[in-house]
Amino acid sequence: MIPAAKYMIKITLPDGAVREYAKDSSALDIAKSISEGLARKVLAASINGEVWDATRPIGQDASLKLLTWDDADGKSTFWHSSAHLMAEAVENAFPGVKFWVGPAIDRGFYYDMDLGDHKMTEEDLLALEKKMNELARQSNPYIRKEISKPDALNYFGEKGDEYKLDLLQNLEDGSITFYSQGGFTDLCRGPHIPHTGFIKAIKLTSIAGAYWKGDEKNKQLTRVYGVTFPSQKELDEYLAMLEEAKKRDHRKLGKELGIYTMDDDVGPGLIMWMPNGTVIIEELEKLAKETEQDAGYKRVVTPHIAKESMYLTSGHLPYYADSMYPPMELDGEKYYLKSMNCPHHHKIFAAEPKSYRDLPYRIAEYGTVYRYEQSGELFGLMRVRCLHMNDAHIYCTKAQFESEFRAVNDMYLKYFNIFGIDKYVMRLSLHSPEKLGKKYVNEPELWKETEEMVRQVLIDSKIPYVEVQDEAAFYGPKIDVQIYSVIGREFTLATNQVDFSQGRSFKLEFTTADNQTETPLIIHRAPLGTHERFIGFLLEHYAGKLPLWLSPVQVKILPISDKFLDYANTILQKLKKADIRVEIDERPEKIGKKIRDTELARVPYMLVVGEKEMVEGKASVRRQGKGDLGIRDLNEFIPELLSEIRDRRSD
Amino acid sequence: MIPAAKYMIKITLPDGAVREYAKDSSALDIAKSISEGLARKVLAASINGEVWDATRPIGQDASLKLLTWDDADGKSTFWHSSAHLMAEAVENAFPGVKFWVGPAIDRGFYYDMDLGDHKMTEEDLLALEKKMNELARQSNPYIRKEISKPDALNYFGEKGDEYKLDLLQNLEDGSITFYSQGGFTDLCRGPHIPHTGFIKAIKLTSIAGAYWKGDEKNKQLTRVYGVTFPSQKELDEYLAMLEEAKKRDHRKLGKELGIYTMDDDVGPGLIMWMPNGTVIIEELEKLAKETEQDAGYKRVVTPHIAKESMYLTSGHLPYYADSMYPPMELDGEKYYLKSMNCPHHHKIFAAEPKSYRDLPYRIAEYGTVYRYEQSGELFGLMRVRCLHMNDAHIYCTKAQFESEFRAVNDMYLKYFNIFGIDKYVMRLSLHSPEKLGKKYVNEPELWKETEEMVRQVLIDSKIPYVEVQDEAAFYGPKIDVQIYSVIGREFTLATNQVDFSQGRSFKLEFTTADNQTETPLIIHRAPLGTHERFIGFLLEHYAGKLPLWLSPVQVKILPISDKFLDYANTILQKLKKADIRVEIDERPEKIGKKIRDTELARVPYMLVVGEKEMVEGKASVRRQGKGDLGIRDLNEFIPELLSEIRDRRSD
Repeated sequence: MIPAAKYMIKITLPDGAVREYAKDSSALDIAKSISEGLARKVLAASINGEVWDATRPIGQDASLKLLTWDDADGKSTFWHSSAHLMAEAVENAFPGVKFWVGPAIDRGFYYDMDLGDHKMTEEDLLALEKKMNELARQSNPYIRKEISKPDALNYFGEKGDEYKLDLLQNLEDGSITFYSQGGFTDLCRGPHIPHTGFIKAIKLTSIAGAYWKGDEKNKQLTRVYGVTFPSQKELDEYLAMLEEAKKRDHRKLGKELGIYTMDDDVGPGLIMWMPNGTVIIEELEKLAKETEQDAGYKRVVTPHIAKESMYLTSGHLPYYADSMYPPMELDGEKYYLKSMNCPHHHKIFAAEPKSYRDLPYRIAEYGTVYRYEQSGELFGLMRVRCLHMNDAHIYCTKAQFESEFRAVNDMYLKYFNIFGIDKYVMRLSLHSPEKLGKKYVNEPELWKETEEMVRQVLIDSKIPYVEVQDEAAFYGPKIDVQIYSVIGREFTLATNQVDFSQGRSFKLEFTTADNQTETPLIIHRAPLGTHERFIGFLLEHYAGKLPLWLSPVQVKILPISDKFLDYANTILQKLKKADIRVEIDERPEKIGKKIRDTELARVPYMLVVGEKEMVEGKASVRRQGKGDLGIRDLNEFIPELLSEIRDRRSD
Repeated sequence: MIPAAKYMIKITLPDGAVREYAKDSSALDIAKSISEGLARKVLAASINGEVWDATRPIGQDASLKLLTWDDADGKSTFWHSSAHLMAEAVENAFPGVKFWVGPAIDRGFYYDMDLGDHKMTEEDLLALEKKMNELARQSNPYIRKEISKPDALNYFGEKGDEYKLDLLQNLEDGSITFYSQGGFTDLCRGPHIPHTGFIKAIKLTSIAGAYWKGDEKNKQLTRVYGVTFPSQKELDEYLAMLEEAKKRDHRKLGKELGIYTMDDDVGPGLIMWMPNGTVIIEELEKLAKETEQDAGYKRVVTPHIAKESMYLTSGHLPYYADSMYPPMELDGEKYYLKSMNCPHHHKIFAAEPKSYRDLPYRIAEYGTVYRYEQSGELFGLMRVRCLHMNDAHIYCTKAQFESEFRAVNDMYLKYFNIFGIDKYVMRLSLHSPEKLGKKYVNEPELWKETEEMVRQVLIDSKIPYVEVQDEAAFYGPKIDVQIYSVIGREFTLATNQVDFSQGRSFKLEFTTADNQTETPLIIHRAPLGTHERFIGFLLEHYAGKLPLWLSPVQVKILPISDKFLDYANTILQKLKKADIRVEIDERPEKIGKKIRDTELARVPYMLVVGEKEMVEGKASVRRQGKGDLGIRDLNEFIPELLSEIRDRRSD
């Protein structure tokens, strides 16, 4: 127990408990007071919402959250400190090197540096890793020092480091800090982990060129990427996941399996779906249409363009203009490619008068929208310019809102179950009150009310979720869904949004039971996201081994020789009649090669037919990746296939 | 027999027979020599492919085809002569009137005139019809007279007719003719029918304003439309058809049945398909996909835009630029909305290397294309700017061409059968040798060869067809299909085209069996045309009473009172489970009104449920337009519905 005293501060812990500590205790001191084991895991701390060094003295009452490897801010502090550790090793190996910036990134860190004439090599990286391990084992503390601007300018002036001098220009005296560990000192705002000993496993992953300040007129610096972990086991798992992800890369699989193609004459980010990809698209659309029909949706089809006036009403212009294709000028009007389907759907709602009897009015479309992404941002199916979106809009009364919103969330869960997605998180994005009237529609009461309605749905449904400030849509709060593929990669996929604003902009109305006129609430939802991103996800998730119902070719018949082609054809007709997607490998190849090639093409089932099979009127069944399943009677085997397809089993 | 002589000419008849006639015999003389009955029907003649007055002397050897009311050129001559007859009546009623031009049109004729201060009225039209009938009965001959330019200028100068003087400016001396009948003379290139007596039935249909030379800066003239026939019976039938067509107008039905809508903020000619229209679209697409899958097509999905370079390769730019939306400029490149799907499909063909084993390679897409039509040309679903096209391209060898082309024609016939289209004509459009290298790809041998192949397919299939010169696509000959709705209106719908040019432009190749490289022939085909025009046609064809399989709502349950709502719901669930599109009329209305409203909404089946039905667990069935079919057990009735749907029966 620490006695209450004049020099004590009150620390509020995340569970609401308030404890008193001596003034200028650090987060680490506080952790130790709770448990030594906990203290050994503390990387940094959140003090009144700001991330601090765990060793920094706390001078007054504060709320505190200890940050470990399990917290995003803990990881990012760890990686930023690793960047400093790398810089120390680099300076050791290449005296006179000058550094620009070295931030933590999504997974790991990098540092941009000017190595003069030296060109960094793979061998250099191995030597640097060795040196970093050596320095890490020294458990050198990261030491924070406040420094005056003149002293800082003096320090880097003497070192002749024009990069840090450039950084200093934009900093104000009184807010400048240096961090040192071992023999290395850097201009840095921090925070850092307590000492280098936390860093137990190091991998420098790649070398790239990067123009100073991202401007190609400037000098090209060397960027070294790395990643570190608090244990070798975690690094090994990470490297194995990378290796697996490389094998599962949707761009590689997309090409091998004939899913999609792109072409210079069409343009960047514009996917052309080949026959195999189109089968997947049509199966996904069939699933969505069935699901939506059961849920009482109607379908619509709308054009891909509209006049400028439409997007002025919706507010896309001018606020969203940077993400839209430029206009086409025709008959004195500007036409835009649509970047969202909502305005067209609102027009369909408005086309016929509506009463409360027509609500909820749910309309769905696999709408194709066009969004301008910088060409540098484009990436396979994940970042594209033409998106086929599983879109729908639900127009409802306030009283209907909760059950409609919940039904959409339930639809997500149904889909996740079909695709074997068992790890997911919903992010509830809220507005930020100080940005009302700027980033967000200025309706403080409606924001509060709808955010509370959405939160309640999540709590009632017992769905795992996190709340994020200042990430709502401009017209209302939203839920984004992050799903994880079987190898643990994260994809942001689906969205479910409330909109209390566009209904008014588009003057949408319905007549209530007591003959009043009201504006409906609108739910924007896209549980399967876009074909592009979802099929990219599926290719990685299944490593190209799509479940039977999604497979472009479901069965391949492999005759042992030309002699059995006629019999193969009889089987082909039987399967076709049952609406199974089937082909014959008619090539004059050995059966071993036919099997290998079919395995590689990820066809789920192979039917090998030779003398024995023909005489018995049967076929030898092989399952992709599982080998021989024995000789089977087709009258038994076909119903099994059909049931696997009908149930959309992932096997 | 007419003896051979020095003053004789040789006339070749359509059947190849050659006969000799005295020099300066007219087509009418020749007709009389064959049969008096025939001569009474001759309206004009085609002399060496040029349409002439039947009475004009033939000075040298020629090929001759007599033209009657059954020939398009016969009809158009008849209507052009009717325009002159109307002008005579107008000049009689309004002395001093000045005429601009008076052509035959698709159905009838018009004449543009300057009536000074007079505003033409409906009463005027009746009086003019009466006068025209009187003049027609006089059987005044149409007399052709060649006239020198000075004499012609003199004639219209004295008349003070600035319009005809304007026309004369552009005519060359030596090629100017006047035509006179009764008391009326006009500057006219002809030809005309022998005399006004052929015109037995006359209807002046409407009055409109028309700017001189179509330029709104010029004076507005009065345009009077009319139509005439060689018998009163034909006029009566035509007027009845017009009346029926008005009732079946797809724009009227489209609105009443909630099929489609348009909006100023979206833009002219851009259809938004409402839920009911989307049901029709999806049923048509399902039919097409099933049919095409059976025929060995694969499906693809392509973006709606591409770079300028794509359309320079295809030749759409600059030749087709007027029919395309203007470009969007992005990242220094021009992007165009696609007006055809072919270039994207060629890119998919080229995306993977092809061998003769991959051919015929058939890829299909319900592609959405955008074409610029003048806003004045836009018309409901018939002339639009956004078209959903039942498109496909077949890449094949020359040896495969005939059977592939025939298979496409057979597919037309299959569709016609489903939709009850029993009147259709195929138009084989050929190139014109003198326009090779301009309007047509300069490949005289390939034109001959492919035209002969296509002709042979038509002859072998015993399909009714006509040949039309100078209407081919720029890349090859084509077949357009004209179909007729049940009330006899003509729609140009489907197309089947050969293309021996784009394969080379896009450098498409396949490896032959002996390892050579060859360019495939391409067939462009769209048997169902576009959703827009086809659904427009179907609405008229069926007068909105769509067959069961196409109906947005297939069954409506009409409870006699609220007491039977629960029972109605039990039936609803049963029908839904069978995938039948069903609704309940829950309004608190009398059963009579419910039946009338459901009849009006053209719902094929009504199930009336009251006390008796509930007790017996049955329903009283009514068929739209046919009344009561008696009380039925649902376990018998549902399978009947399903079989009507599955067979796509038209009743």
